[in-house]
Amino acid sequence: MTTETLIITGGHVLQLGQDPGIIEANIRVNCITGKITNIDEDPVSAQQRDANDEIIQTLDAAGCVVMPGLVNAHTHAAMTLLRGYADDKPLQAWLREDIWPAEAEMTPTGVRAGTELAIVEMIRSGTTAFADMYFHVPEVVAAIKNAGVRARVGHGVVTAGKDDEAARNDLNKGLEVAQTYDGAADDRIQTAFMPHSLTTVGEEYLQEAVSEARQDNIPIHYHANETRSEVDPIVDNHNKRPLTYASGLDMLSSSDFLAHGVHLETDEIDQLAEAGASLVHCPASNMKLASGIAPIPALLDAGVTVGLGTDGAASNNDLDMFDELRDAAMLGKIGADDAAAVPAAQAIHMATAGGADALGLPGGQIKEGAVADLIVVDLDSPHLTPTHNIISHLAYAARGSDVKHTVCDGTVLMQNREIQTIDVDAVVETAETQAQSLIQRMS
Amino acid sequence: MTTETLIITGGHVLQLGQDPGIIEANIRVNCITGKITNIDEDPVSAQQRDANDEIIQTLDAAGCVVMPGLVNAHTHAAMTLLRGYADDKPLQAWLREDIWPAEAEMTPTGVRAGTELAIVEMIRSGTTAFADMYFHVPEVVAAIKNAGVRARVGHGVVTAGKDDEAARNDLNKGLEVAQTYDGAADDRIQTAFMPHSLTTVGEEYLQEAVSEARQDNIPIHYHANETRSEVDPIVDNHNKRPLTYASGLDMLSSSDFLAHGVHLETDEIDQLAEAGASLVHCPASNMKLASGIAPIPALLDAGVTVGLGTDGAASNNDLDMFDELRDAAMLGKIGADDAAAVPAAQAIHMATAGGADALGLPGGQIKEGAVADLIVVDLDSPHLTPTHNIISHLAYAARGSDVKHTVCDGTVLMQNREIQTIDVDAVVETAETQAQSLIQRMS
Repeated sequence: MTTETLIITGGHVLQLGQDPGIIEANIRVNCITGKITNIDEDPVSAQQRDANDEIIQTLDAAGCVVMPGLVNAHTHAAMTLLRGYADDKPLQAWLREDIWPAEAEMTPTGVRAGTELAIVEMIRSGTTAFADMYFHVPEVVAAIKNAGVRARVGHGVVTAGKDDEAARNDLNKGLEVAQTYDGAADDRIQTAFMPHSLTTVGEEYLQEAVSEARQDNIPIHYHANETRSEVDPIVDNHNKRPLTYASGLDMLSSSDFLAHGVHLETDEIDQLAEAGASLVHCPASNMKLASGIAPIPALLDAGVTVGLGTDGAASNNDLDMFDELRDAAMLGKIGADDAAAVPAAQAIHMATAGGADALGLPGGQIKEGAVADLIVVDLDSPHLTPTHNIISHLAYAARGSDVKHTVCDGTVLMQNREIQTIDVDAVVETAETQAQSLIQRMS
Repeated sequence: MTTETLIITGGHVLQLGQDPGIIEANIRVNCITGKITNIDEDPVSAQQRDANDEIIQTLDAAGCVVMPGLVNAHTHAAMTLLRGYADDKPLQAWLREDIWPAEAEMTPTGVRAGTELAIVEMIRSGTTAFADMYFHVPEVVAAIKNAGVRARVGHGVVTAGKDDEAARNDLNKGLEVAQTYDGAADDRIQTAFMPHSLTTVGEEYLQEAVSEARQDNIPIHYHANETRSEVDPIVDNHNKRPLTYASGLDMLSSSDFLAHGVHLETDEIDQLAEAGASLVHCPASNMKLASGIAPIPALLDAGVTVGLGTDGAASNNDLDMFDELRDAAMLGKIGADDAAAVPAAQAIHMATAGGADALGLPGGQIKEGAVADLIVVDLDSPHLTPTHNIISHLAYAARGSDVKHTVCDGTVLMQNREIQTIDVDAVVETAETQAQSLIQRMS
């Protein structure tokens, strides 16, 4: 029996792990299962397999590196509609004066348009999987389903400033969305319960909802320890550090992933490690909002799983994970006062395997049996010349626009920079229209 | 009499200055003088001028922003040959163990190849002018002449570790190069005397050479206050801060520009301001080598002219000034603990007018009578959608690969991403060969 096969030929293949390296190999993908079946370093065995398989698609990777698809482990995809809408302000003022008023006007159609724009940008820059915390989640799910990417999604629950009925409605939406969409889009979509943060959701609501989420084995994702002005009220009101508070609410288990973790004390790093909870580092957002520098070397030393996220496009202002992993390396060094901190391979690991592990999604590695979530990065460019060290180039010189092909779950989402699953021009036009009408509604 | 004219049509034109903004205009360039003759906001007067001029070239800027060409105010262009050769090490170890041994093997042919590779990368990412400190300067000059960009060049003088004869030879080369090439390439090339730093050139040598440079009105460019390990020996040996030492050596006048300025005391910021000397901020290099965070808001508040530089490609690892200006905004915020620090327009100003002023080169502004050093940036991309704020996009979301056309001195160097003046494939191939043979000579 022949197998419908996708072959990626002639590339340098990035192998992560303890001793990251590059091998020369063809990669063979079973198009039905979406999994990598072989990594052929030997041309003779490759030829033999060619005879048995039905090769239905070939991607040329000559002069390119084949690497795991990047994982954007914390974003609010539809916020692309607010890209450039407000900049150069600290988190609290920016949220209260600009972002929340704009989001109050966001419609389901707007969320669909913004999410599609985000996905187009992510596919074009090599991201195959992401975590999304937003609202109107059915629209987010529909966009992901069509586009062919992988994601863990949830409804961002906020109870602060709401009466009890509205608070409970939001809480229930958070749970319902997590229960409804887990396994959607041929299992490419997983879910989480996503309370916005430890300050924007009340203690009693968290208690109730987390208990219900645990019964269904639903992971929890929230913003934690992002700014001093978020940490201080928790310490003031509860007389404990945020992660001790979270732990007491059963919000720190091995399936959970927390965004930011800028202001962490040593005890809290240990708590994360002991619980097996993951952290998602968002260096660009932390710089742009002047939130601070997360202690990434200490977190990694403690054994915490660390992924990388762009956060929303309004605080970045792009969703290019190559930017993000370079920022992680750069900020890590300046934060640790040590040029050896967060070396190239570590930044790449966080942007791939680290993110996939944090989200509990398959992907992040190129090996036999793994899902074929992978990208082909063209090295034949002046800014990637000469080729002393491909791993260095991926961390410090490559960018999203160097991605030539993007594959997720064995399906080619972008070939030769042409997206195969979505009409990019239509997405861009709709997003522009939706963004302008959102602003008009506000004035 | 008709004038040979280049027209750039239909773009949004960036106007810098106190209140930066965007106007809709066609730009008209006299191809003989290389200067901007008109900025036509009025289509009727534009039509009248069309009748008088001989339009020999039109660049389409519809859906694009037209802005001043970026100025890379501190680099070592030929170090592209060492891109990715050594990373994740602090400045001193990186220089001593990796970079200096490699540079000892650099030939004139290598410098030519590396400089051409750098210029290709810069033209492709929107840089029209740069400052270059390196050696085998005749090769640098030849590369610039062919490529059509603008630069201030010099020979990086080092006397440390040399006997008196070798030291004097290097010093003389530094002066001779500055005297010989000023005004080369139809005045696109200017020069400076470039002692490497205050620690790598001896005091008596500096005294002699600076005195000679001053007689010829040659500006001086050097690394200053980059790392603590560079500042400490000056304080120890001379019992004064580096810029007081520099001032005593007549190395702090209004034509001079200093690279880095990470570790500056308030008195030194005032000294820069009073002297009218300029500072070139290199945020990516400072992060990658963990050198520290330069006090950019304080420097700008004091009235110091600040430009931006990528530094060499081995400590960045790209020459994309869009990356650099985003890094300047991001690092400025985290350094000042203030999200309002180094706002978008300020970062763009440093990357354009600030850099041109620091180098004492024309450019950095789009106005009638100015040199036509300008770029056209394509906004029609998912990652630059929606268009709430073009200035925000240029600072936070655009990248070098969005540059569509590059014009320097009225000559189109890149049109629709095709470089017009150099054979890019040949440059990439030669640079790769030269880089590999350099490494072979070292082993």
